[in-house]
Amino acid sequence: MFNFTYNIPTKVYFGDNQLSNLGKEIKKFGKKVLLCYGGGSIKKIGLYGEVIDELKKENLEIFELNGIEPNPRVTSVNTGANICKKEKIDVLLAVGGGSVIDCTKAIAAATFYEGDAWDIVTKKVPVINCLPLVTILTLSATGSEMDAGGVISNLETNDKIGVASPLMQPKVSFLNPKNTFTVSPYQTACGAADILSHIMETYFNTTGSMYMLDCFMEGMMKTVVKYAPTAMKEPENEEARANLMWTSSWAINGFARACQKCNWSCHPMEHQLSAYYDITHGLGLAILTPRWMRYILDETNSERFKNFAVSVFGIDSSLDNMTASLKGIEALEKFFFEDLKLTKTLTELNIDRTHFDIMAEKACGNGVLKGFKELKKEDIKNIYEMCL
Amino acid sequence: MFNFTYNIPTKVYFGDNQLSNLGKEIKKFGKKVLLCYGGGSIKKIGLYGEVIDELKKENLEIFELNGIEPNPRVTSVNTGANICKKEKIDVLLAVGGGSVIDCTKAIAAATFYEGDAWDIVTKKVPVINCLPLVTILTLSATGSEMDAGGVISNLETNDKIGVASPLMQPKVSFLNPKNTFTVSPYQTACGAADILSHIMETYFNTTGSMYMLDCFMEGMMKTVVKYAPTAMKEPENEEARANLMWTSSWAINGFARACQKCNWSCHPMEHQLSAYYDITHGLGLAILTPRWMRYILDETNSERFKNFAVSVFGIDSSLDNMTASLKGIEALEKFFFEDLKLTKTLTELNIDRTHFDIMAEKACGNGVLKGFKELKKEDIKNIYEMCL
Repeated sequence: MFNFTYNIPTKVYFGDNQLSNLGKEIKKFGKKVLLCYGGGSIKKIGLYGEVIDELKKENLEIFELNGIEPNPRVTSVNTGANICKKEKIDVLLAVGGGSVIDCTKAIAAATFYEGDAWDIVTKKVPVINCLPLVTILTLSATGSEMDAGGVISNLETNDKIGVASPLMQPKVSFLNPKNTFTVSPYQTACGAADILSHIMETYFNTTGSMYMLDCFMEGMMKTVVKYAPTAMKEPENEEARANLMWTSSWAINGFARACQKCNWSCHPMEHQLSAYYDITHGLGLAILTPRWMRYILDETNSERFKNFAVSVFGIDSSLDNMTASLKGIEALEKFFFEDLKLTKTLTELNIDRTHFDIMAEKACGNGVLKGFKELKKEDIKNIYEMCL
Repeated sequence: MFNFTYNIPTKVYFGDNQLSNLGKEIKKFGKKVLLCYGGGSIKKIGLYGEVIDELKKENLEIFELNGIEPNPRVTSVNTGANICKKEKIDVLLAVGGGSVIDCTKAIAAATFYEGDAWDIVTKKVPVINCLPLVTILTLSATGSEMDAGGVISNLETNDKIGVASPLMQPKVSFLNPKNTFTVSPYQTACGAADILSHIMETYFNTTGSMYMLDCFMEGMMKTVVKYAPTAMKEPENEEARANLMWTSSWAINGFARACQKCNWSCHPMEHQLSAYYDITHGLGLAILTPRWMRYILDETNSERFKNFAVSVFGIDSSLDNMTASLKGIEALEKFFFEDLKLTKTLTELNIDRTHFDIMAEKACGNGVLKGFKELKKEDIKNIYEMCL
């Protein structure tokens, strides 16, 4: 039962004034760097200029790919990979949130494939090699800065699919909490919901965990609950931003997961939501998660729910399992929809049941979603219905 | 405040049946391997034979250094380094507990120095290069399997000194809880005290931590308190052994330490004890730690003591700081001296005050020990006196 391989080689420069190490780290991998970023917020906060200055200090040759979308598209991956092939890029530098980093990971792999990058995302062809990747994080959410995976969307097919390879793991990541000071309260809340969901997907598992790692996950969940509302109210609170940032990385880098092999539940359901409606991933997770919990909670699994309730939300441990569990779910709902002010229903987002059937089918891969509790297509449809 | 570099590249194969990966991992570094171990317990448990088999499968050329002592001596380091130089060893394989791994780390560095290895331990010369190191752990205690340091003793001068370099960090470590099934209750207890002390030395600091990491440390301390007595009573309890083993690595690998820069207190005092009397490191820590806590506790630092008491031992959080703190120390004493059955006083070990003066002087490096509370030579002597 206690078998796993731990391998998280990403080096992290955490905190302020660390960017002076950027040039020397990039240089280890070569001269030609492709700088990848999104809609330009990194220019607004002055980070773009700082990055360029540091790269120039080391006489690196800079190429750029900008305009990477939230829920990044495979079209951007192909564009990036073409630049890498044409210009013989040595190393990739992603500056942004999870979407930018995910897209850049896919570019790293697609550079070594002659066809459409979608073949890699859909696993039609394997990841055989990757360009080295350095990241500078500007949003605490997906954990992509320290893990080996990414999620890519295809608007033509309404697909949103995860791809992972140890080769995609960032070599070095720069995590400066101050780079998240300008993240809006809404995006801060969505990021917090994403972090919390990563931990919960791991915490609620059927294959057992280690007590030591359970404690770690409970501590991380408490951290999100404690600091996300603070970061929304006081966007320049460094303590809150630092705690959220480091938790975002550790929620999903593989350490907490260790020996358990259970699949996730809410992420596959949410990926369909954002594939069909392009909503923010964390928002979709916040809407789905409490409904999923209410749907699957029963006497056989309530002990885990109670542990969650007691350790994360301080629910009275003397209550019976089911009562404590329900109070925990209520506390989570209060956290998402009152403290984080997130939208509570799909209806409010103008999403109706039109696509629930095909979304449910895709979420379970035409079979069964083997998460904490097995979900069939009908179950997933029921959970979507509960979100209206 | 939230500035640090995180860099823990050690790959870990955790659990049973992982040794089949040994040969291929060693082979990455070369053909000639020096197998380093201690008094032969690895032969009794059959591990020696398994290791040799795996190495032979990959046609590796095996050299051996055995008889590495607890509190490993610089003489063993020199012996090992001489073998490496003479035989042109490519890679080191340490099989054992912290003493064997520490000694092998020092050999890794001393191989690239022509003089006495003690010059490296005493920092007379810097670590400029190291042979790559792979470890197979057989005792959960020092955390040497995943950190960059080691402690070497010199019986001629009664010195016990730590040496560290990122170059010494093991490349790969094999952690199989089953390899600790034969560890005696006494050694299990000493190991647990060492692990707990590593966490406490980090938890009690003046430079501040991150809440997220405080939670992690509290979880690890709870893990030790929960599982050490179980492992003593049921030596083949895999859950207990696995939790202790993974906690031993994470207690000191640098993750929990992150942004705080405070020095340690009990380890420097204990190193003098085991340097002068060759007692087991963990036992010395168990004797010293509660006395140190009672000596330094005051109104200005009692909040931290209370957090410790509440989170690790479940002391009532509604108590005032000083009362809760004292109850926490009592609970720790009960844990060490009743649950773990460790000797409570130096007197019982036939240690008297003969060397307290010189030991205290060495512990504070002839100045001040800048830990959670600054300790001068007289303070350290007082703490040693409390241990009689």
